[in-house]
Amino acid sequence: MLNKIKVIGFDADDTLWVNEPYFRNAEFRLADLLKPYTPGTDIVDELFKTEIKNLELYGYGAKAFTLSLIETAVKLTGKQVPAAIINEILAMGRSLMNISIELIDSVDKVLPRLQPHYKLIVVTKGDLLDQERKLKKSGLLPYFHHIEIMSDKKETDYQKLIDYLEILPEEFMMVGNSLKSDILPVIRIGGIGVHVPFHTTWQHETVNELPSQPYYEIESLSQLPDIMADFL
Amino acid sequence: MLNKIKVIGFDADDTLWVNEPYFRNAEFRLADLLKPYTPGTDIVDELFKTEIKNLELYGYGAKAFTLSLIETAVKLTGKQVPAAIINEILAMGRSLMNISIELIDSVDKVLPRLQPHYKLIVVTKGDLLDQERKLKKSGLLPYFHHIEIMSDKKETDYQKLIDYLEILPEEFMMVGNSLKSDILPVIRIGGIGVHVPFHTTWQHETVNELPSQPYYEIESLSQLPDIMADFL
Repeated sequence: MLNKIKVIGFDADDTLWVNEPYFRNAEFRLADLLKPYTPGTDIVDELFKTEIKNLELYGYGAKAFTLSLIETAVKLTGKQVPAAIINEILAMGRSLMNISIELIDSVDKVLPRLQPHYKLIVVTKGDLLDQERKLKKSGLLPYFHHIEIMSDKKETDYQKLIDYLEILPEEFMMVGNSLKSDILPVIRIGGIGVHVPFHTTWQHETVNELPSQPYYEIESLSQLPDIMADFL
Repeated sequence: MLNKIKVIGFDADDTLWVNEPYFRNAEFRLADLLKPYTPGTDIVDELFKTEIKNLELYGYGAKAFTLSLIETAVKLTGKQVPAAIINEILAMGRSLMNISIELIDSVDKVLPRLQPHYKLIVVTKGDLLDQERKLKKSGLLPYFHHIEIMSDKKETDYQKLIDYLEILPEEFMMVGNSLKSDILPVIRIGGIGVHVPFHTTWQHETVNELPSQPYYEIESLSQLPDIMADFL
C-alpha cells in the first residue's frame, strides 16, 4: 500500500513542535487568577465548556482561546472580574502567539530524508497567521511544498484537500498526534494514517471509539523513515 | 492584454459583500461605552493605534478586532473598565462574526457570466473560518474554484499565489475595493488590477501614492463583463 504514497501531510502543533503544554499552562494561570472570585468552581472545566460553545463561531487557535479565557473570567466572576486580570489574560494570549519553537524529536532530521521522494505539506487547523509564523520560526519551511490551513479536520475537509491536490486517497499519508483529527478521518476516506502520540492532548481531541481500519502507530517521528524504508 | 487572463481573483469584504460599515458601527459603539471614562479622548483613533500595533501579531479579521477593542477599553480606562463592558464587547465581536450577508451590486449576476470562461477564486486576508462562513452564507460558493486566505496581500503574497496557481502574472486579474491591497501589489508584479471603490474604507487601507502602472477603475462590479466583453 505504501508504494502509492505521493503526498505526506504533517499536522503541526504537537506533531512538529510543542504546543499544548503552553495552552495547559495558560489554563492553570487562569484558574489561579480567578480562584479568589469563585472558590469551589472547576475553572478549567468551565473554560473547556466555553471553548466548546465557541468552537463553531471562533474556530481553533490562540486568538479564539484568548477570547474564551476572557469570556470565562467575565462569566465566572458574575461580571466582577477586575480589568487588571483582563489585561493579564490579553498578555497571556500574546505570549501564546509568541512562543519559541521547540521541535519534537528529530523532525529536522526526518523531513530531509523524505523530501526528495514525496511532496510534504503541513495540514493544520490552527490560526493562519499564527501557524505561518510558527512554521517560519521552526526552520522547517524549506522542507514543505506548502501549508494547508483548514477550518476543521473532518472527512469532508480531507476529501477536499485530496481533490485539490489532484491525487487519490491511497496516495495520501497523514502524520499527526491526534487520532480524532489526523488519523480517523483520513483512514475512513481511504488514506494512510500514522499516529505519533504526544504526552499532552487537549480534551476535545480525545476519542472513545476505536478505529475499524488499520493505521500505523509510532512512538517517535524518527521511526517514520523506517516505515517508508523500501522507498527512500 | 486581457486576452491572456486565465484566473480572476475577487477580494471578499466590501467587494463581494458589505463588511466595513459593521466594523465602523462597532467602533462608534466602543466610543459610546468608554466616553464616560475618558472624556476628551479620541477613542476611535486610540483603537486604530492599538489595531496597528497588534496587526503583525494578530493579523486581520473579527477575532483580532475584538481583542483590540478589549485592549483599548482596558488601556483607555486605566484598567478601570467594568467587566459588563468587556462582556458587551465580546457580544459585539460575536455579532461581527454572525453578520447577515448583503451582496454588493449585482455580483450574483456577474459571476455566472464569467465562470464558464475563467477560473474564479476568492482572495482575502480575513480570518479563515470567518471568511469561509461568509462565503457559504453568501450563496456565491458554487461560482468559485476555491478560496485563498492570505495572512497579508503584499507583492510577495500575490507572487506566491501566482506560482501556486502555475500561471504567469499577466494571466491573473484581481478585482477589489482596496487600491493598497488588491490593486497596487498586483499591477506591480505584472498582473491586471480592477478597482471597484466602496464608500467606506478602513484607514489602514488608504494610500497616498499614485500607481505608476495603469489599472481599470469601475463604479460597479456589473461593469466587469463589459471590460471582458470580447472574451465572453
